[in-house]
Amino acid sequence: MSKHKVIYDTDPGVDDAMALVFQALHPDIELLGLTSVFGNATIETTTRNARFLAGRFAPGVPVAQGAAAPLKRAAPEPLAWIHGDNGLGNIAIETDAEAALDARPAYRFIIDTVRAHPGEVTLIAVGPLTNLALALADDPQIAPLVKQVVIMGGAFGTDGVLGNVTPAAEANILGDPDAADIVFGAQWPVVIVGLDVTQRTIMSRDYLASLRERGGAAGQFVWDVSRHYEAFHEQSAQLEGIYVHDSSAVTYVLAPHLYTTRSGPVRVLTDGIAVGQTIQKPSTMPVPAPDWDSRPDSTVCLGVDVPGMLALYERTICGTL
Amino acid sequence: MSKHKVIYDTDPGVDDAMALVFQALHPDIELLGLTSVFGNATIETTTRNARFLAGRFAPGVPVAQGAAAPLKRAAPEPLAWIHGDNGLGNIAIETDAEAALDARPAYRFIIDTVRAHPGEVTLIAVGPLTNLALALADDPQIAPLVKQVVIMGGAFGTDGVLGNVTPAAEANILGDPDAADIVFGAQWPVVIVGLDVTQRTIMSRDYLASLRERGGAAGQFVWDVSRHYEAFHEQSAQLEGIYVHDSSAVTYVLAPHLYTTRSGPVRVLTDGIAVGQTIQKPSTMPVPAPDWDSRPDSTVCLGVDVPGMLALYERTICGTL
Repeated sequence: MSKHKVIYDTDPGVDDAMALVFQALHPDIELLGLTSVFGNATIETTTRNARFLAGRFAPGVPVAQGAAAPLKRAAPEPLAWIHGDNGLGNIAIETDAEAALDARPAYRFIIDTVRAHPGEVTLIAVGPLTNLALALADDPQIAPLVKQVVIMGGAFGTDGVLGNVTPAAEANILGDPDAADIVFGAQWPVVIVGLDVTQRTIMSRDYLASLRERGGAAGQFVWDVSRHYEAFHEQSAQLEGIYVHDSSAVTYVLAPHLYTTRSGPVRVLTDGIAVGQTIQKPSTMPVPAPDWDSRPDSTVCLGVDVPGMLALYERTICGTL
Repeated sequence: MSKHKVIYDTDPGVDDAMALVFQALHPDIELLGLTSVFGNATIETTTRNARFLAGRFAPGVPVAQGAAAPLKRAAPEPLAWIHGDNGLGNIAIETDAEAALDARPAYRFIIDTVRAHPGEVTLIAVGPLTNLALALADDPQIAPLVKQVVIMGGAFGTDGVLGNVTPAAEANILGDPDAADIVFGAQWPVVIVGLDVTQRTIMSRDYLASLRERGGAAGQFVWDVSRHYEAFHEQSAQLEGIYVHDSSAVTYVLAPHLYTTRSGPVRVLTDGIAVGQTIQKPSTMPVPAPDWDSRPDSTVCLGVDVPGMLALYERTICGTL
C-alpha cells in the first residue's frame, strides 16, 4: 500500500511523544511535518519538544510553530501536573539534534503541504484545533484537498463520560472550542477519536515495562517519558497504567477496522457551563435539528478493539510488525 | 413493608397512563394524588386524562391541575404524533367516572401533601418539572421533608444518546429546562431515570400481547392505549415494541436494586444549541467544577436489569406478584 502522508499537529505532551514515536516507526506512515500548538504546555515548550522529538525519532522532518493561544480566548495554563514542567514528563531534553524550524507558521505549512499533495495528506491533530482553523480561515479551499482529518478530542458519553477537565469537556476541545466547531464544520472528512475509546484503551504498567524490555531505544524512551504521566493517572484516577489518547488517533489511521464508529454532524458548545462539549447528531436520528443539519457528517469512534490497538503499538515499537 | 406514599406528577401521555396503571395495581404504592402538567399534550388535555385515569384505576385519588407552560417559555406543541390527538393514543375516554378535581393548583397540593406526611412522600415526576419548581419557589422548606423525587427525564449518553427530541435533550427536561435545573439543585434526594435506561427497556409486541391476554381489564387497557404509541416507535425508530419511559421511574421506587446508578450533582443547560441537556459531574471526578460543586448529589440511573423490570410490570398488571 502507499504510505499515509501525515502532518502531525501536536502539543507535546507525553502521549503526543508516544504517538510521535509510533508514527515515526510505523512503515505505513510518511511524516511530512510536525506543527506545534499550545495546549499541554506553552507554545514555546511544545515547539521545543516537537523539535526534540522530530530530531531524535524522525530526522529530516520539519517542525512549524503554531498558535500560542486559542482563536478568541487567553491561553490556558500548562498542564504541568500531567505532563511535567517540561511537557515531557521531566525527562532530559537534548537540543543538539533538534529538528529544523520551518520559517512558516503552522497554518501556512499545512496549507502549502496540502496543496503540494492534493488528496493525499492526512492531518493527525492531537491538541487544540487552532492551527487547523487558522488554515481554513486563510485558505478555505484546502478542505476538500485533505484526505482526512483524524482528531484526538471530545467525548460522546458512551461510558457516561463527557469530559476529563470539566464534567462536559475534554481538554483538547476545551483548549479552543471555537476552532473545534469550525474544524468539524468544514468540508473535509473528519474522524473524532475521543474519550469514548481512549479511556477504554489502557497501557498497563506491565505493558509499559514490556516495551522497555523489548522495544530497544524507542521502548526505553516510551518508558522514561511516561513515568510522570503514569504517576498522574494513579493519583487522579487510581489507574495502574495510562490512558492511550493521542496514539489512538494514529491507530485509527493505520487500522480503522479496530474502531466502531457512528456518522453524523458534530457541534461544539462554545459558551455556557458545558463549553467545549462535543455533541453529535447521529445520522439515524429522525428529528430535525437545524443547528446540526446543515453540517457535514463526521465519523465518531464509539468502540475499540483494545487488544488489537495495544498489539499494533507494541509490534511497532518492538519492530515485530 | 410500609407503602410508598406517592404523588404522581404526570402529563398523560400513553406511557404516563401505563405507569399509572402500574402504580394503581402495585400493593406497595399508596397514591396520594395525581398532579397534571403540560407536556405530551396541553394542560387541559393532560388534566382531563389524569382525571379519567385516576377515576378508572385509582378511585378516590384526587387530581390537581398544574402548570400550563414552562417557567420562562411558551408552552410546546402537543406531541400528537406520539401520543395521539387526545394524548392517550386516541382510545375512547369516558368522563362519567372521572376523578374529582382538587381546588388547589398542583404546586400547592404538593406542598400541603408533603407537609401532611413529612419524610414520607415520594414524588414520581414524569413530565416537565414545572410543578415541582413552583412548589419549591412557594415553599422552599418542603425539600428536606420529601422522601425522594424520582424523575423520568434526561439522558447521560451511555448508549451514545444524549436526547430524543434534539441531539442533546430529552423531551421532559426540554419541556422546562429552567425548572429541571432548579429541581436538581434542591435539597431533596433526586433520582433521575433517563434514556440511558428507558430506551434499553423495551416492551416487545409479544410482551404487550401477552399483557392483553393475561392481564384482564388492565392488560387490555395497556394494549389499547399503546397501539398508536407502538406505531410511532415503528415509524420513528424501526422498533418492534415500545420504550419504557415513565414506568421505569415507578420501577425504581419499587425495586431500586434493578438499576445501577452513579452519584454526583446534575446541571441542566438552559440556553444554547444544547438547551435541555442534563450533565452530571460524577462524584469520582477529581477536578473542580464550580458550576456543579455547590450542588447536592443526584442519583442517575445508568444501567438496568431489563428482564427484572419487565417481569415486575407484567406480574403487577397480571396480578401474579
